[in-house]
Amino acid sequence: MSQSNQKKNWKNHLHEIIYEADTPAGKLFDLILLVIIIASIVLVMLESVKTIDAKYHDVLNTLEWGITIIFTIEYIARIITVKKPFKYIFSFYGIIDLLSTAPKYLSVIFAGTHALVALRALRLLRVFRILKLGRFLGASNNLVTALKASRAKISVFLFAVIILAVILGTIMYLVEGEENGFTNIPKSVYWCIVTLTTVGFGDIAPNTPLGQFIASLIMVLGYGIIAVPTGIVSAEYSNQTRNPIQPESIPTHTNNKKNINLNSQSCSNCLKSDHRDGAEYCYNCGEPLHNS
Amino acid sequence: MSQSNQKKNWKNHLHEIIYEADTPAGKLFDLILLVIIIASIVLVMLESVKTIDAKYHDVLNTLEWGITIIFTIEYIARIITVKKPFKYIFSFYGIIDLLSTAPKYLSVIFAGTHALVALRALRLLRVFRILKLGRFLGASNNLVTALKASRAKISVFLFAVIILAVILGTIMYLVEGEENGFTNIPKSVYWCIVTLTTVGFGDIAPNTPLGQFIASLIMVLGYGIIAVPTGIVSAEYSNQTRNPIQPESIPTHTNNKKNINLNSQSCSNCLKSDHRDGAEYCYNCGEPLHNS
Amino acid sequence: MSQSNQKKNWKNHLHEIIYEADTPAGKLFDLILLVIIIASIVLVMLESVKTIDAKYHDVLNTLEWGITIIFTIEYIARIITVKKPFKYIFSFYGIIDLLSTAPKYLSVIFAGTHALVALRALRLLRVFRILKLGRFLGASNNLVTALKASRAKISVFLFAVIILAVILGTIMYLVEGEENGFTNIPKSVYWCIVTLTTVGFGDIAPNTPLGQFIASLIMVLGYGIIAVPTGIVSAEYSNQTRNPIQPESIPTHTNNKKNINLNSQSCSNCLKSDHRDGAEYCYNCGEPLHNS
Amino acid sequence: MSQSNQKKNWKNHLHEIIYEADTPAGKLFDLILLVIIIASIVLVMLESVKTIDAKYHDVLNTLEWGITIIFTIEYIARIITVKKPFKYIFSFYGIIDLLSTAPKYLSVIFAGTHALVALRALRLLRVFRILKLGRFLGASNNLVTALKASRAKISVFLFAVIILAVILGTIMYLVEGEENGFTNIPKSVYWCIVTLTTVGFGDIAPNTPLGQFIASLIMVLGYGIIAVPTGIVSAEYSNQTRNPIQPESIPTHTNNKKNINLNSQSCSNCLKSDHRDGAEYCYNCGEPLHNS
Repeated sequence: MSQSNQKKNWKNHLHEIIYEADTPAGKLFDLILLVIIIASIVLVMLESVKTIDAKYHDVLNTLEWGITIIFTIEYIARIITVKKPFKYIFSFYGIIDLLSTAPKYLSVIFAGTHALVALRALRLLRVFRILKLGRFLGASNNLVTALKASRAKISVFLFAVIILAVILGTIMYLVEGEENGFTNIPKSVYWCIVTLTTVGFGDIAPNTPLGQFIASLIMVLGYGIIAVPTGIVSAEYSNQTRNPIQPESIPTHTNNKKNINLNSQSCSNCLKSDHRDGAEYCYNCGEPLHNS
Repeated sequence: MSQSNQKKNWKNHLHEIIYEADTPAGKLFDLILLVIIIASIVLVMLESVKTIDAKYHDVLNTLEWGITIIFTIEYIARIITVKKPFKYIFSFYGIIDLLSTAPKYLSVIFAGTHALVALRALRLLRVFRILKLGRFLGASNNLVTALKASRAKISVFLFAVIILAVILGTIMYLVEGEENGFTNIPKSVYWCIVTLTTVGFGDIAPNTPLGQFIASLIMVLGYGIIAVPTGIVSAEYSNQTRNPIQPESIPTHTNNKKNINLNSQSCSNCLKSDHRDGAEYCYNCGEPLHNS
Repeated sequence: MSQSNQKKNWKNHLHEIIYEADTPAGKLFDLILLVIIIASIVLVMLESVKTIDAKYHDVLNTLEWGITIIFTIEYIARIITVKKPFKYIFSFYGIIDLLSTAPKYLSVIFAGTHALVALRALRLLRVFRILKLGRFLGASNNLVTALKASRAKISVFLFAVIILAVILGTIMYLVEGEENGFTNIPKSVYWCIVTLTTVGFGDIAPNTPLGQFIASLIMVLGYGIIAVPTGIVSAEYSNQTRNPIQPESIPTHTNNKKNINLNSQSCSNCLKSDHRDGAEYCYNCGEPLHNS
Repeated sequence: MSQSNQKKNWKNHLHEIIYEADTPAGKLFDLILLVIIIASIVLVMLESVKTIDAKYHDVLNTLEWGITIIFTIEYIARIITVKKPFKYIFSFYGIIDLLSTAPKYLSVIFAGTHALVALRALRLLRVFRILKLGRFLGASNNLVTALKASRAKISVFLFAVIILAVILGTIMYLVEGEENGFTNIPKSVYWCIVTLTTVGFGDIAPNTPLGQFIASLIMVLGYGIIAVPTGIVSAEYSNQTRNPIQPESIPTHTNNKKNINLNSQSCSNCLKSDHRDGAEYCYNCGEPLHNS
């Protein structure tokens, strides 16, 4: 076997570990990465707590450097093992990976920049890649389908809620006025959303009898309409999980095959994942898939 | 062609643009109108914020005049192009159109009248006309039917909630008394609605042990009965979307929805079908797929 | 016809007006009574508002006397027209009727007694008698059946919620302590119920990091379990409204007949109502029913 | 009969009383134990209230000693009557029993230890053992199955909620900052969970316009996703309670439930059936009905 071939094998092997979750090595890699990501998020949180940061600044700083270096190595490995590196770099997760690695390096240059915390929080998004490939997929698959099916209806509903909030918020602004905390219409609309969604902070609350009467109507209304999205999802999900009658002549493959056929493997050329089991070529680019 | 006929044609054409949403021109008109309405609402909101109004009063005033003129032109155009102008003028949307155009003209006469803001907020209702004609109709159609079907039941339910709130509010007024914020029965009933609907502002809260005990019962009760309207809508909507028995062996709509992901196209090389939408290569043999 | 017979006829006629809602006279009587009851409740509320009571004390007092006299006449009429007066007097609604009439008379003797307000609020319960006889019955019938069917399950669930609240409340009392408002265990349990039911007054709120962490768990838990009673009612109600398959051999009368057969007529002897249409004798005491 | 045999009989009899709930003696034992446990919990609560403890310290102390002695006797009886005592001692309920008995004895040694309250609160867990054996089991059985079936999906969902809370909490920390109460990221995440779950304490609330705008989005989002767990449980529970296809023509349980109201008894005079339960006279002919 030529050296080039060996190198390719080594690369393929690494690709399998990093990008696939079905092999034991791939699963271990994902698990370790998951732990490191969660640890890095906990770090970001702890650093934001003044008292902890004052005491353990050096420890937290060292750990952050360690995690940054691990992420850097992982980022380079991902670029090397993929066939089209630029496609990865400019993909959604490629950008997330870069942005969640960069902050510590940038903090050397722009010392004490507050906004870097936000970049570091982006690391959490990486969790989704791992879980998407993981075992939770099966459990949430039906759910995702139900949510997709009811997306349009829930959008219409939420849109109606927002229009309602604007109209009722304006009325409350006129009724309560600035002296009771409803200082302007956007704030009134904010209060109205707080009330309609039954959150009810209480930072602003109606004081006049008329205001409290309208608020009561808004609340009872909110109580009545909270039923709507629940009803939608409930009915859609119910339809997903159960087909009360399945005469043989109706093709039923749509329900069963999805869970059986799709695996977590991702194409080394175009990075598309969720190929069906036994697929030998990528459905997106025609690249042969390497099944161990 | 006579001049009168040409004029009629021009009118018909304008009518089509303004009142119909299926032609490209009509869609464009609706879209532009939607943007202007939303912009006008944002204007009303921004004007109510003291600090913004102080800085940009002249800009906001000019924009408001611009929007008022556009609405005036639209209002005149609607009257001209419609066959029975008076029917339009006294229709629901005709009155809304007039009321949402008038405030700026009225503000010249009655300078600084606060209540004109409310009239301007009515513009938001115009959004419903546009959306009603739009594409969202399909999505919310089933929902509307379900809500109509459960209207009577939800009314009964909400009525029971109000009676409960009055009785429990009176009890809380007697238990807590004026020194704990329950200054009178209407306020107690308001508090009770705030609590039953799980909004919980906290502007008034029970202080005595007995008051807190009764409040706990009210909350657990509210928790139990929040289930009722949800259950109603859920069941009604479920009945709308699904017919449990469909003896004819036609594939139901649930099967079609799935076809968004998996289509019936078959590979020209290996004849495997059920490729996913947008797939460009066969998952089985790597043959390019010919999408028409 | 003898005088005694005429008197009996007159009594029967009055009975029909007062106790039955199917005749035009009965409907009118119920409607007037409903308006008076609601007016009397509004009176009780207005009197509790200090500023209104100070201004319009005499007007409110006169109106209250007027309503008390009307209720007194109605109470006497009910006693006269019924065959077994004592059965009515000691029935649930008989006691309610007496208690909601008495307060004004008692206030002459025990001037300024605060607790009489509670007695007057009991008048609201009379609304249920009228509505029970009214047209809303049909709409809420299915709902009542669904609620009865899920009563046991919801009880178990609410009981579990209370146990959870006691355990979590004790933990929060130990974690937060008296300095953060969790002054004793009953108050902590109260806070826990406020949180689990997603009411969230905010009169007491955790201050320590550990307390806030546990509070987060409680809230997510509450979010998760709010689904349970909703799911129960939803499923039960769904079963009530729909029978997916009704083979001919299953008796289906239970679903249909209830709405068709029961009317609002009540027996002049034993006061039982909800007889089936066309019934000629009371199902409870065998007394002939007078159908107009 | 030998003495050993008699002793065994006595043991068996005691075992039956303590561990089984189907015999009258077992039911009585469970009921008494339930009352004592609840009394002991009320005691723990009352002791935590400063004012009550100051007044009635001696009474509460004596009662606590009484309950401790009863629990000690019960614990010993359980060990004696069980065949494998060590299996019981190290079982879940064995440890709970020991821990809920010990605090009073420990308080003699470690006087005034605050944490002993927590141990005493564990007594509440004993309630579950009794109720598990009791009659409520039937009602909650279906529910438990439904919850188990939807456990995985709700876990995924709650996990997604937590990730969302972390991301949105970090954003709010950056937007609002320390001057508005969002002092660090964990606190911001806590606020975000408070908001997403619609609890809304209001101890922390956004003050900046941008913060209030993002908060509005979070609330509308929370409003939309509250539907998800409800939909899951609803659908799963619906599947548990109902089998859409029941080809055998046996009357389903739904029909029996209704028979509580309408029974199959037929009148001995006119043969009309479907009288309501408890009816003593035929609704058709007034003939007395003979209830066995």
